[in-house]
Order: sequence, then structure tokens, then C-alpha cells
Amino acid sequence: MLRLNTRDAGFEQAFRRLVNDRRESDDDVARDVQIILDDVRNRGDEALAELTERFDGHVLASDTDWSISSEACREAFDILQPDLRAALELAAKRIRTYHEAQLPADRDETDKHGVRLGARWNAVDAAGLYVPGGRAAYPSSLLMNAIPAKVAGVERLVVVTPTPKGQINPLVLAAAHLAGVDEVWRVGGAQAVAALAYGTKRIKPVDVITGPGNAWVAEAKRQLFGVVGIDMVAGPSEILVIADGKNDADWIAADLLSQAEHDPTAQSILITDDPLFADTVADRVGVELAMLPTARVAAESWKTHGVIIEVASLDEAPALANALAAEHVEIATDDPEALFRQIRHAGSVFLGRHTPEAVGDYVAGPNHVLPTGRRARFSSGLSVLDFMKRTSFIQCDAKSLGKIGPAAIALADAEGLPAHARSIEVRLGI
Amino acid sequence: MLRLNTRDAGFEQAFRRLVNDRRESDDDVARDVQIILDDVRNRGDEALAELTERFDGHVLASDTDWSISSEACREAFDILQPDLRAALELAAKRIRTYHEAQLPADRDETDKHGVRLGARWNAVDAAGLYVPGGRAAYPSSLLMNAIPAKVAGVERLVVVTPTPKGQINPLVLAAAHLAGVDEVWRVGGAQAVAALAYGTKRIKPVDVITGPGNAWVAEAKRQLFGVVGIDMVAGPSEILVIADGKNDADWIAADLLSQAEHDPTAQSILITDDPLFADTVADRVGVELAMLPTARVAAESWKTHGVIIEVASLDEAPALANALAAEHVEIATDDPEALFRQIRHAGSVFLGRHTPEAVGDYVAGPNHVLPTGRRARFSSGLSVLDFMKRTSFIQCDAKSLGKIGPAAIALADAEGLPAHARSIEVRLGI
Repeated sequence: MLRLNTRDAGFEQAFRRLVNDRRESDDDVARDVQIILDDVRNRGDEALAELTERFDGHVLASDTDWSISSEACREAFDILQPDLRAALELAAKRIRTYHEAQLPADRDETDKHGVRLGARWNAVDAAGLYVPGGRAAYPSSLLMNAIPAKVAGVERLVVVTPTPKGQINPLVLAAAHLAGVDEVWRVGGAQAVAALAYGTKRIKPVDVITGPGNAWVAEAKRQLFGVVGIDMVAGPSEILVIADGKNDADWIAADLLSQAEHDPTAQSILITDDPLFADTVADRVGVELAMLPTARVAAESWKTHGVIIEVASLDEAPALANALAAEHVEIATDDPEALFRQIRHAGSVFLGRHTPEAVGDYVAGPNHVLPTGRRARFSSGLSVLDFMKRTSFIQCDAKSLGKIGPAAIALADAEGLPAHARSIEVRLGI
Repeated sequence: MLRLNTRDAGFEQAFRRLVNDRRESDDDVARDVQIILDDVRNRGDEALAELTERFDGHVLASDTDWSISSEACREAFDILQPDLRAALELAAKRIRTYHEAQLPADRDETDKHGVRLGARWNAVDAAGLYVPGGRAAYPSSLLMNAIPAKVAGVERLVVVTPTPKGQINPLVLAAAHLAGVDEVWRVGGAQAVAALAYGTKRIKPVDVITGPGNAWVAEAKRQLFGVVGIDMVAGPSEILVIADGKNDADWIAADLLSQAEHDPTAQSILITDDPLFADTVADRVGVELAMLPTARVAAESWKTHGVIIEVASLDEAPALANALAAEHVEIATDDPEALFRQIRHAGSVFLGRHTPEAVGDYVAGPNHVLPTGRRARFSSGLSVLDFMKRTSFIQCDAKSLGKIGPAAIALADAEGLPAHARSIEVRLGI
């Protein structure tokens, strides 16, 4: 854990290093991924089966090897423990309600010249959702990706998920049923992303691919950006907690560890104006770690990437927060609004002492798929807009074209595009 | 020019070939671009100067070699011919008005449990706009990129544009002045995109890069996607004209050629239900080409990529249009709305007989930066949203956390994330 103080001489330099530390895999997976993408593009299901056997130890022979039926998903949902089922249902309902309010409005206006202008939104026809296998197979992630797609109006929602050695995660199937997923294919890695983008004989192509994955999946999505739409380039998770000394140190320590347990490359940062509180939180992190079943991962993350920044006043916090542009920002003070107003760059903000970030991971309603690695400077969390697109439209009649057409002719001539000018001139009888 | 008829036996296959023909450069520029990006990242302005001398024949020595002042842009604007200045001003005003209505609303709601949820939009701090040099240096493109950025609230708007052998395009400078551009740097190619993304000693980094460019620029943007936000992967331009036999063939021929004159790889497609009209349009394209100063480019585009599709009824047109997902779609009929209602995938639609696509290129108001190469299936034209991002927020108090927290605990436990559960439990005294 790194301890910084804004009053120290070396702070600027140390903080700049922190801001520029992307914590991202620099393995050169790009070439391997490109080979896999080309292979699936050229040989389709045959390549998919070979790669799935090689990487997942799963043989794709019969139809049930290839995909999981809607009935199997429904069964997984039906046999859930009642409290878990209720929790999933509450999460799904709240996520749906929050995202329904994101649906954009169409426009249709006519201006004073009689020019009609507008825009109409449509959902993409088909979306693909990557769901990791193994440790990171989170039903909550499935809900957070699938529900916005369905709210957007996507008719065909396809899940791909690896089933290593044939192993299926029943919680993921239950969530797929609840979210209304239409197809579940038992493939993973870059090969699954390629199948979604290019299509194969069995798997029809989709228009947008979202969902978390390892470095290979992320690189495959990055390479296929433009062939399909993708949500974002995701990196390790991070939290920035801004807390005064009046907080319960146990609460804040728990929040820092909730991020750290995700991954050894996850990052937890505390900014506080109270040096004693900083000491106590550091102690309590140690105590809590001793009791935590996920201590191995969380301890490595905290040791390697954890940071406590001591500030002279919390008024210094927004500038630091904007430079870090963190995925999650907690503001644990009596008047969180005062600081929040000054924070321009953050994925999601958790206000006040009773809003641990974890409540946003599951049940609050806003999306938990958020920009990481300072990408909150320019990108947003997942929303229904990621599954929709806008078609603008223009309608002139003879009179309104007469009003605005001559200016277009002048500009087309100036740009050396005479056929552009001509298409207006012929209509105006020029 | 390719002539198809939906009633012909081979139509399905020929149409599928047309849909899958991406017309995009398959030069392997990726590796060269990567070398340039790394070079600028490592050596900054020194690399930029070397590459600019090599590719543009322009020596970056004094400050005026490096950049163009706001005063120089203002002068270029002031000495414009009055009609051209008025045309630029009309275009800028109409583009601004249309894009102002795109500004998204913030959200702030409290649900029945007392959970406060919302989202706030902020502009990115800085945006970079690529403006090509030479033939494709269009002041209209500068307006279409710069105005949405300024409407979004971007404080620092940076233009990069190559000035081959020192040559500056005064129209572009005039448009930069009108749009309120803050900096103009005389660099181009992948090296300029790298400078915008990574920053150099002279050029501070930006958060989002938009604007058209050649294959090297497009590849640089693609590779830097995730380091910065980018607008889209752009390909050659295209138009689909849906027209009945009651149109003036000269008007439709002019529209097809207005697209064709952009680039030899541009594509113009006509769908009509009238075989005689199809013949006449094909004739008129030939006649118009003979008079057109841009005939060399337009003829190559029309010969290589032009298509006329004859349909039994225009009712067949929407399905074909959705499969093609064209950048521009004209519907030249008496009741364009009937067909438009069925078109889900298009960049922008031009309704009725008096709305040539060119009016949208300049003065109508909606953006002319639109998805090409079938990307209208999943992406939208440029808008203020490309220069903004959303921060969601959540606020619970003790009571509302008590209502929704237990479900989050159940899900965190099921996902094997005990520190997530613990951060809620400590607050609920569990």
C-alpha cells in the first residue's frame, strides 16, 4: 500500500505516476487473437470446435454440447433457493426500471423555413453478450448487460460462455432465463467473440457485442470494433473513497476490500483529511483481511495497488478525483453533494456514509458496467443507448429548398464538389 | 455499373455479394501505424517534426510552422467573399440549433424505498479534430465536428491538419474561426493522431478524437480506441436512392453522381420499380458525367460500384435498405413516410423529391458525419453525445440500505465475493 500526502514535496510526481499507472496487461496477445479471428472467420464452426476443445477441454459434438436450451435455463431458475431467486428478481426489476428511463425520445420538428428535421431511434437487430466462465461468472453481470439490451428492444439476444470441461454455472443460466436471453452458446475466448461478429453456420452474427472478459476477449472486441459495435475496452476495476474522519473505519476498510477482492490488479484508493483515520483504516484493512475468504487476491491488490492519500482539506479531493477519473467514487461525508458537484470525471458516484459501492454492483439499478483505467474522462457506463442507434432525417419541399439550397450550392462550389451543387441546382431550376 | 432485378433467379446471391462488399482498403497499414504511434509516444515533438517533414514536406521549426494562430483564422474568415461567408454562417447557425436540442438531461430521482438514483452529464475536457489536407479539406466537415463539441461544452477544441509543403487551406481556417476552435496544429497522418492521444511537449493530450482521414488516420484512431474516445471507424461514402418512375431522371442522376464524385470507392445505388425510369437515369448519368469537372472520380465510382436494382414494387425496398444499412437513403416518392417507417438501419434519410442528399452535407442541420459500410446497423451519426459522458450516482440512507441491502448480500455471497457482502453487513449491523 502506498501512502501519499499532498503536503509532501514529492507528491505531484508520485500522484502523476499513480494517474499514469494503467495496471493493464501488456502481454502481446494481439497477434494470437488475430489468428483466432481469421480462423473462425474462414472455417466457422469447425475452427470453433477445435479451439473450444483446445482451450476449454469441451467437445462440441451434439446440439446440447453446442448450446443450452431455454428450458434448461428455466429449470436452473426454478430450482434456485427462494431467497436467491427473490434477490435476483429484485435486482432485475430495479435494473429494468432504471434503464427504462434511459430510452431516448425521437425528434420531428419543422423550422421557420419549412425544413422538417428529426431523428428516430431503433434498437440493433441482435446483440451478443460475453459471459466469462470460472471465477468471474457473475449472474449480476449477465443482468446488467442483458436487461439494457432487452429494454432497448433487441429482438435476438445471444449469450456466449465457456463451459470448461463441460462445467455449467447454474446461476448464470438462471439469470439468462430471468433476463430473457434468446440463445446460450457454450463457447468462450476470442473464438466466441469472432463467431458473434462474423457468424458461423450455427451461430448467426450479431450487431453489438458487450460483456466482460479476460485480455483475449477484450483484445478480440477491440480488433472487431467497427465490424460490430462494442461497449468499451475494459480494464481492472477500481474504487476511490473520499472520507472524512467521522466515518466508521471498519465500513471504509470493507469498501476498499470489496474492490480489492475482485482481482490482484484491482485498485482501492482512500483520500482523507484525517491522518489518524487513515492509520485506523490501514489497520482495519489488515484485521479484516485476516478473516476474509478472498484474502489472497484482496491482499495482493491492496499491497500492490492500494493507496491512501492524506489531504490538508477535502476541498483538494475533487481535483484529484478528476485526474484519476475512477470507475467508482464513494463520498462518505455529511454533505457529499458539495464535493460531487465538482467531480466531472467518474463512472459512478456513491453518496453519503450508507452507500457502499457493492449496493450498486447488484440491486441499486444503475449499470455496474463502467469505464475503468481513467476512461471516465471520455466514456460512460453501459446503457440502453449501447444497443440503439439514431437515424436522422431531413425533408424539404420546393420552397424550403429554395431558402437554404443556395448556401449549400455556394459551399459545394467552394469545396470543389460540382455534382453536389448540381443536385440542388436542377431542383431549383438554376 | 451493376444492374439487378429482384425477379431474377440469381438476385439473392448477387445482392448478398453487394451487402458483403465492404469496399475498404485492405492495405496492411496496421504495422506501420503502430510504429508511428510508438515513435510519437516515446519521442514526442521530435518524432512529430521528423515525420511531418518526411510525409508532408513541411519543416516544423518556428512557432508559426507548428501552429496557426486564432488571429490568422479570424483574418481568413474576414477576407472571405461575402456570399461564402454568409453561407458558412447559415450552415454554422443551423448545425448549432439542431445539435443544441441533442443536449441530454440529467436525472435525479428518489424511489419508494428512499434510494436516490440519477445521472449527470459532463463534456470531455478536450477534444481533437482531424481535418485532412489536400482535396478532402472540407470546411463543412470542420463545422460538423467542431460545433457539436462546442455545444457539448468542450473547453479545449484542437484541430490537427497537415499543410503539405506549407500550404494552408484558408476556408478551413475561416471555418475554424467560426466554430470557435482553440488550437490549430499543422500536423497530419497517424503521427498527428498519436500526438493528440498521448500528448507531446507542445500539444497537450485530448480525451476524444473525431474527424475524417485516410486509411492511416482511420487505423491510428482504431488502434488508439480506449486510450481516447473516438467517433467511429469511417469508410467510403454511400447513397441509396429509392425512387418511383415519377421523378425527374436528371434530379436522380445528379444525386447518384453527388455521392460518386467523393471518391472512386464511393457507392451510389438506385432502387426503382420502373424499368424505363432506370434506363433513363442510367442514360442521364452518362450525359451529366460528360459535363462534370469531377468526372474522372465520379465515373470510376459509378462504373465500379454503381448499382441499379429493379424491384417489382417499392414495398420490397425497405428490406433491401435495411440489409444495406446505407449511410444516406433518399426516398423520392409522394409518400416517403410510408417507406421510412419500415427502414430501421440508415445513417440519415432524405424524404421526398425536393431533398437532395447534398443539402444535408452543408446546411440542413443534422450531422453529415454518418456511419458507413453497413455500420448504421449499430452506430449513429456524430452528435453532442460523442463529446460527453454520463456519471451515474446512488445515495442510500440507513433505512433504504436496509430495504435493498439484504438482496445485494445474498447475490454477493452467491458470487463468492464476501467483502462485497461485508461492506453492506457492517452498515446494517449484521
